[in-house]
Amino acid sequence: MAKILRVNMAQRNIIEEEVPEQLALLGGRGLTSTMILDEVPPGCHALGPNNKLIFAPGVVTGSAAASSGRISVGSKSPLTGGIKESNAGTPVATMLGRLRIKAIVVEGDPAPEGWWLLRVTSDSAELLPADDLDGAITSKVNEVLLERYGNRVGIVTVGPAGEQRMAMAGICFSDAEGRASRYAGRGGLGAVMGAKRLKAIVVDPQGAPGVEIKDQPLFRKGGRKLLDALQTHAVTKPGGTLNTYGTDALVNVMSEAGGLPTRNFARGNFEGANKIGGETLAETIAKRGGKGLSGHACHQGCVIKCSNIFPMEDGSEHVSVVEYESAWALGANCEIDDLDDVAEMIRLCNEYGVDTIEAGVAIGVAMEAGVVPFGDGKGAIKLLNEMGEGTPLGHIIGNGAAFTGRAFGVVRVPTVKGQAMPAYEPRAVKGMGITYATSPMGADHTAGYTVAQEILGIGGSEDALAVEGKADLSRSSQAASAFIDTFDYCLFIAFAILDIDTGLEGMVESINGVLGTEYTTADIDRIGMEVLRTERRFNELAGFTSADDRLPEFMTYEPLPPHNVVAGVSEAELDSVFA
Amino acid sequence: MAKILRVNMAQRNIIEEEVPEQLALLGGRGLTSTMILDEVPPGCHALGPNNKLIFAPGVVTGSAAASSGRISVGSKSPLTGGIKESNAGTPVATMLGRLRIKAIVVEGDPAPEGWWLLRVTSDSAELLPADDLDGAITSKVNEVLLERYGNRVGIVTVGPAGEQRMAMAGICFSDAEGRASRYAGRGGLGAVMGAKRLKAIVVDPQGAPGVEIKDQPLFRKGGRKLLDALQTHAVTKPGGTLNTYGTDALVNVMSEAGGLPTRNFARGNFEGANKIGGETLAETIAKRGGKGLSGHACHQGCVIKCSNIFPMEDGSEHVSVVEYESAWALGANCEIDDLDDVAEMIRLCNEYGVDTIEAGVAIGVAMEAGVVPFGDGKGAIKLLNEMGEGTPLGHIIGNGAAFTGRAFGVVRVPTVKGQAMPAYEPRAVKGMGITYATSPMGADHTAGYTVAQEILGIGGSEDALAVEGKADLSRSSQAASAFIDTFDYCLFIAFAILDIDTGLEGMVESINGVLGTEYTTADIDRIGMEVLRTERRFNELAGFTSADDRLPEFMTYEPLPPHNVVAGVSEAELDSVFA
Repeated sequence: MAKILRVNMAQRNIIEEEVPEQLALLGGRGLTSTMILDEVPPGCHALGPNNKLIFAPGVVTGSAAASSGRISVGSKSPLTGGIKESNAGTPVATMLGRLRIKAIVVEGDPAPEGWWLLRVTSDSAELLPADDLDGAITSKVNEVLLERYGNRVGIVTVGPAGEQRMAMAGICFSDAEGRASRYAGRGGLGAVMGAKRLKAIVVDPQGAPGVEIKDQPLFRKGGRKLLDALQTHAVTKPGGTLNTYGTDALVNVMSEAGGLPTRNFARGNFEGANKIGGETLAETIAKRGGKGLSGHACHQGCVIKCSNIFPMEDGSEHVSVVEYESAWALGANCEIDDLDDVAEMIRLCNEYGVDTIEAGVAIGVAMEAGVVPFGDGKGAIKLLNEMGEGTPLGHIIGNGAAFTGRAFGVVRVPTVKGQAMPAYEPRAVKGMGITYATSPMGADHTAGYTVAQEILGIGGSEDALAVEGKADLSRSSQAASAFIDTFDYCLFIAFAILDIDTGLEGMVESINGVLGTEYTTADIDRIGMEVLRTERRFNELAGFTSADDRLPEFMTYEPLPPHNVVAGVSEAELDSVFA
Repeated sequence: MAKILRVNMAQRNIIEEEVPEQLALLGGRGLTSTMILDEVPPGCHALGPNNKLIFAPGVVTGSAAASSGRISVGSKSPLTGGIKESNAGTPVATMLGRLRIKAIVVEGDPAPEGWWLLRVTSDSAELLPADDLDGAITSKVNEVLLERYGNRVGIVTVGPAGEQRMAMAGICFSDAEGRASRYAGRGGLGAVMGAKRLKAIVVDPQGAPGVEIKDQPLFRKGGRKLLDALQTHAVTKPGGTLNTYGTDALVNVMSEAGGLPTRNFARGNFEGANKIGGETLAETIAKRGGKGLSGHACHQGCVIKCSNIFPMEDGSEHVSVVEYESAWALGANCEIDDLDDVAEMIRLCNEYGVDTIEAGVAIGVAMEAGVVPFGDGKGAIKLLNEMGEGTPLGHIIGNGAAFTGRAFGVVRVPTVKGQAMPAYEPRAVKGMGITYATSPMGADHTAGYTVAQEILGIGGSEDALAVEGKADLSRSSQAASAFIDTFDYCLFIAFAILDIDTGLEGMVESINGVLGTEYTTADIDRIGMEVLRTERRFNELAGFTSADDRLPEFMTYEPLPPHNVVAGVSEAELDSVFA
């Protein structure tokens, strides 16, 4: 029987609840967003007693479904002030799925002192003192807890940034080897965990009953079809783009398309792109050898394997993982083209526990303000260290790009709903601009990835600079993402299932196999839209209006080289997405 | 013929315009708010090219009407993100009125380097380089400009905080003797002036034609009736409460009523109240002698004379003016009870050019975060100096209370719409809470001063802790304030005209005498409501909803000693104010 663990930090007790019927078919984002709307007052302070933090693996997570090891974290965001779901690929997700823990709800107002650790096993859940981990960087937390609880446990933790309730703090999950490297990074959920004074969660999967599968044959049939698609498509197959170069393959692609935000979104192409792109990354990893690894899997059961371990020059491990978004944010966006500097910045983000996107954009804004010069890798590293140390400047950067802009009176701040834009210039990729503007999450590429059609020619082919039809494209992409995040497949399966119909059918059959439902591919949009409406309802009650569904003003009057285009999507078009 | 000066900082030219008919009867707040709604895109960045900064004296300002020497400044606020009108009592107001300059509109996107000075005389207006004033504190600006242009000119300036575009920066006006001491403090309008790179305005009144009066006999008759009321009422008369003790008389009154916010709004009474209250202030000024002065007039033509000059122990001048709001914010709210420390803090706010209310509340929030301890006057002074120097911590404090709260993850932040609450605890003075919550200005005591009825027994007597009828009281008070701010009488005339009907009639007759209108006292509410609706329309377009018309969440669950009451005003009651 699946259950919900309710962890009250005020009373320091844990209640095990049955899953109410109306939540039974939900998981991941659909579950967290529904529960947040039901249980959290939209007007509450995100770091106050009435906010909650909810962890939920997806519906198929923990089963043998390919690339489904993701976990959603939901809350009211201290960064955006709206609802937030952020997810990560991690064995912790599969462990909770196999333990049949549908959600962990962290709630209540903790005493102002002390840190706590939640330990979950197949037959117990307890809160233990964790003052010894006070201030610990994430790798230290994982080292201590793996030592204490055995190297098979999964670990969730916040770094110093989360403890200090900084609004760019993420939540760190262990990877397949126990590294503190997999992030539910966006929206400052680490600050909520810090405000709840929960330093870490340890999940011990021993004795887990595994995911209940209602129709095994159907599940197996669907799983095989999806797997075939993933192993066939050029992007997702073994030795394909993602497996070989990782997501960082996009740096050169986007720079050539004129849509790689460079120098705090002042240009769409970066002279140093190739120095930090996937080709150079893979080459460097291969050349340096040692602990370096391309094609690393973030969790067992991933068939795409797009992660990596980046080595130092001597082959020792530097950091996992150099992703496109991270390399862009901390690289191109800051005009930094030294891959080792970028890797060090990613490592610091991981250790202090922050979102690399928000960090890179905040640093870019600080560079615009003249705090350190553009291109100054060592200066940027210093800013991250100030954040970890909690200096006043660190508190500025640590609260994100919009906050840094406000601190220094910067007008050119690339955020929507207070959240930093990711690595696609909305002026040059119009559909992404619509997603950034209208997603209930704030600017988020994973919320509706129209880049597939607009740049990559996957799932169709659209002119990235054209506006027509993009509101529809963004809306359907947002619905599809909300669907996938609810079942917590990795979003990258979309590359395969957008092009290969049998893969799409296989995904739906796998889901039906688990739940005993009779969903068809036609339900994807409906279910996704229900999740989006739930999220938008929360935001509306929190005070969001169409005025929040807008790109930053400067993008409406400042043409972006090399295409020299402004945002160019009308307010009416933006408002049509969820009309 | 009255005119509007349009100062374009991009082209660095000045255009003189006739006043359009639909604006002819407006002045002060009514004029600035109408023009801001007409001309500024509500979604624009407050520090960006599309915002404007509008200075407008009131309709009767510059005439012989008693206590009418006030000027309104309007803009989109960088602090609240909504419309803002902030006003000050200063000879600059009367000079512009007498020069028949109905408004100065500062607009356009300046070059990123260089500072400018606007010089206005009876027959010219020009922009002059002001790089020599780069970084100058306000007293230095006034010293240089009085020396350069003669000691009869009026001066408007921003300090280092405005230059650095900090969201608590105010706009400083010269007083009757040329001191840099009269502030349009609220809402960060100094940051807008800084963003326009306008360091100062010099107004030379020589040759001014004076205010055009349509009906001199009526104007004289009305003026006499208002003057009589002011000279009769116990609060406003010569030797009355305001003249003898200044506004600071309220410290003890409010502490005894349990409504003096103390220790970052943790209590409603302050043990050290009497050490910083008006009685001690007047006594200290009298005892120290020298340059000290109670009953100082902020501009010629004021009959109330509530200002003061606070001396050092040796009788030399320390600061003008120790007001209630300033002494409370920088004193009681920070648990600082040393009047000399408080005076020094006010001086630093004046010199760096910031709102004392926002500064005191921001410091209180920083104290709550543990940055410096409560009660530490020297520590608070250091924070203000960091602001002036523009250190990272200074940029945090300088961006206000809500920003400081966000920087350090503080939940107890006493702001509405991002603006710090003034010196009346909304849990203990319910009508003020409704004004704070619903005013389009954000938390602002001058927006609808129900303290008159709830604490002072002026204009009626209401139980401060009762909720019933307070939505109506707040609404009518807000309308009356908007009316008075439009004609730019000093709000303190309200004490007299609320109790003395002939005074009220006299005010309306004075206005009719100037404009040739036939307003009656029944028009006050109508005209005031029109202004409020204009302001709320701007805010609505900027994205404000009823969710923004709320007190901070912590006040809804944290009882305030000594009365141990929570906010206790329902959302329905709040929404009824402008329903």
